[in-house]
Amino acid sequence: MNLIEQKISQAVRILQEHDIDLWLTFVRESATIPDPVIDMVIGQHCTWQTAWLISSTGQTIAIAGSLDVAAIKDKGHFKEVVPYVQGIGSTLLEVLNRLAPRSIAINYSTDSVMADGLTLGMYRLLSRYLEGTPYLDRLLSSQEIVATLRGRKTQGEIDRMQKAVDITLAIYDELVNVIAPGVTEKQIADYITRRAHEFGVEPAWERDHCPAVFTGPAHAGAHFRPTERCVEAGHVINTDFGVKVEGYCSDLQRTWYVRRAGERCAPAEVQRGFDVLIDSIHRAYDVLRPGALSWEVDAAARQTIVDAGYPEYPHALGHQVGRAAHDGGIGLYPKWERYGALPFGKVEAGQVFTIEPRLPIESYGVATVEEMVWVTDNGNVMLSKPQTELILI
Amino acid sequence: MNLIEQKISQAVRILQEHDIDLWLTFVRESATIPDPVIDMVIGQHCTWQTAWLISSTGQTIAIAGSLDVAAIKDKGHFKEVVPYVQGIGSTLLEVLNRLAPRSIAINYSTDSVMADGLTLGMYRLLSRYLEGTPYLDRLLSSQEIVATLRGRKTQGEIDRMQKAVDITLAIYDELVNVIAPGVTEKQIADYITRRAHEFGVEPAWERDHCPAVFTGPAHAGAHFRPTERCVEAGHVINTDFGVKVEGYCSDLQRTWYVRRAGERCAPAEVQRGFDVLIDSIHRAYDVLRPGALSWEVDAAARQTIVDAGYPEYPHALGHQVGRAAHDGGIGLYPKWERYGALPFGKVEAGQVFTIEPRLPIESYGVATVEEMVWVTDNGNVMLSKPQTELILI
Repeated sequence: MNLIEQKISQAVRILQEHDIDLWLTFVRESATIPDPVIDMVIGQHCTWQTAWLISSTGQTIAIAGSLDVAAIKDKGHFKEVVPYVQGIGSTLLEVLNRLAPRSIAINYSTDSVMADGLTLGMYRLLSRYLEGTPYLDRLLSSQEIVATLRGRKTQGEIDRMQKAVDITLAIYDELVNVIAPGVTEKQIADYITRRAHEFGVEPAWERDHCPAVFTGPAHAGAHFRPTERCVEAGHVINTDFGVKVEGYCSDLQRTWYVRRAGERCAPAEVQRGFDVLIDSIHRAYDVLRPGALSWEVDAAARQTIVDAGYPEYPHALGHQVGRAAHDGGIGLYPKWERYGALPFGKVEAGQVFTIEPRLPIESYGVATVEEMVWVTDNGNVMLSKPQTELILI
Repeated sequence: MNLIEQKISQAVRILQEHDIDLWLTFVRESATIPDPVIDMVIGQHCTWQTAWLISSTGQTIAIAGSLDVAAIKDKGHFKEVVPYVQGIGSTLLEVLNRLAPRSIAINYSTDSVMADGLTLGMYRLLSRYLEGTPYLDRLLSSQEIVATLRGRKTQGEIDRMQKAVDITLAIYDELVNVIAPGVTEKQIADYITRRAHEFGVEPAWERDHCPAVFTGPAHAGAHFRPTERCVEAGHVINTDFGVKVEGYCSDLQRTWYVRRAGERCAPAEVQRGFDVLIDSIHRAYDVLRPGALSWEVDAAARQTIVDAGYPEYPHALGHQVGRAAHDGGIGLYPKWERYGALPFGKVEAGQVFTIEPRLPIESYGVATVEEMVWVTDNGNVMLSKPQTELILI
């Protein structure tokens, strides 16, 4: 079984666990507006309106425009392909009548991007097709299915992510020979990009800030591209970078300190900031286990930082990683409006999280460290060899 | 003014023309689920929930998560940037109260993919934020704005598309030396891909069927990848290919005939099929002008083919081209369910359409020719030097 077929077979089990009869992914021109579940359980795009159906009894049915049919049959992930020419509505109804599902999950979610691929226009079309049938009232969110499916990593998925982590850390290890006073953020980023290219891998997110490189106290802030700003002695430097290996991502951050003339180690205030940061990661790591609430893990790190007198990081402690660097489902989220109900979700075995607190060290820069942790029933597995010491330049 | 700023300034005029006060693009993690208007009038992605506002008075306001703010300011397309940390709701309301729009266009459409970037989850979030305010009832579809904006090409957009067309046709011209008995569809496709790479351009749509190459009577059908099927004498061959130049696409098809031993020209039935196909393009071209209804242009070609005794093509006559190969808005559509209200839309000056009928020639293969036509107030401009003769191998 290839990875798509493994994930489809997981999806069938998850439908059974959640007692949902049918999962409908309803898309058109999906290369233009890609529903995020496509990469996971479908593996191809279509031009015309297409209904991808996975049932709790293990049936996989694609209802597709006639021109898209040959490519779907060729892939073979969906065993039954039902073609239409003029409009999908009546064909979709025929198939639904045959399956008679008591519940139909569709891809919308206020909280989870990865389960929110259905557009409002496509939802209104679907509602129109189902008007006057019992199915309209049987629609529900696929949020739980998608979260479980993306979170529950197969060994094949973990293997790919481990490769992505290893390449990222190998490149990071080389930076001790690259970072130096006078070198710009952009030059460091270019080095990382070149090495990733030599490893034959793509960046894990948008190129303009993958890698992100920040040097010194007055840098541009997260999610910003590397600038012409020069590394100087006395700077704290951090980078944020990940790569994609066979469709699976890494996402890791590291922190360096550039010593000034005569310094053998970092100044006490830099070292203290770094140590508090690492301590906050350890505390979160200890709380992170199956059954822990999302916000509890965030709070463990956040409180450590605040208790030590530093400002809390203006973002979540972490997120899941998988096919996307921000893989959705629950993360390690504070109870903020933007995270909706997700902070109250439970951590489950199989999920891979980043732990990535941030801490400003006044006059020096920002310390960030991001690790990747695989949660299992037998304890956590650190996919990334963790940074425990400030790297000195 | 760069292209994004030109399109924003067009958007402001279009809002005025349609008497709509405000256009709201509401997205999150937009690199994962990219609203198609982002490339056109925004030009960057954000991680957190972001409200991109363009008003009919020319204001451009981005309400964005604090981490995304620096990158937005750096691009500078949106003049005012309002940051938030915990949740966007109250900040969005403050800005709306200040602008007091009587109408707010949002990106949903049952008919047009390009105006349907708002997901159902994001719509429900927006509805929650606006609950109890007058703005909830002032939401309407941006379909007309998006269609007009994408359709009304600036000279800069046409210049980029002309380059894409010229490169595509230059590669097509070379194929007379590539297509030969014994060569596979895949080898022809590989040649096209290599040449596009040498021209420094990307394919206009998904690589697996860009180019598409079909040889002979029993090929796989449209939207399918090239196979190991060999060209043989007596085959009609067609290709479908386009490239992207600075974000703008071409999309063109051509047809060849491979002569059998002793043939100086194509058999009468092949020539007749090709001639009917070209005639159907001419008829559609003559009907295509500002004010023509979408379905009327399709019907002109479709009827020509049916009247000549061939089966009608199982798709629309054409679509717009721009940043996407299928650029949305109206196309040249038959009155079929899947096209919704679009067949009744009017052609407008500034739009670029493909004309791409298809015609099976029994025992030989399928003839397809696709041209690109720019509709102006002073008549049509053929961007592609049209194919008028069957190319003989």
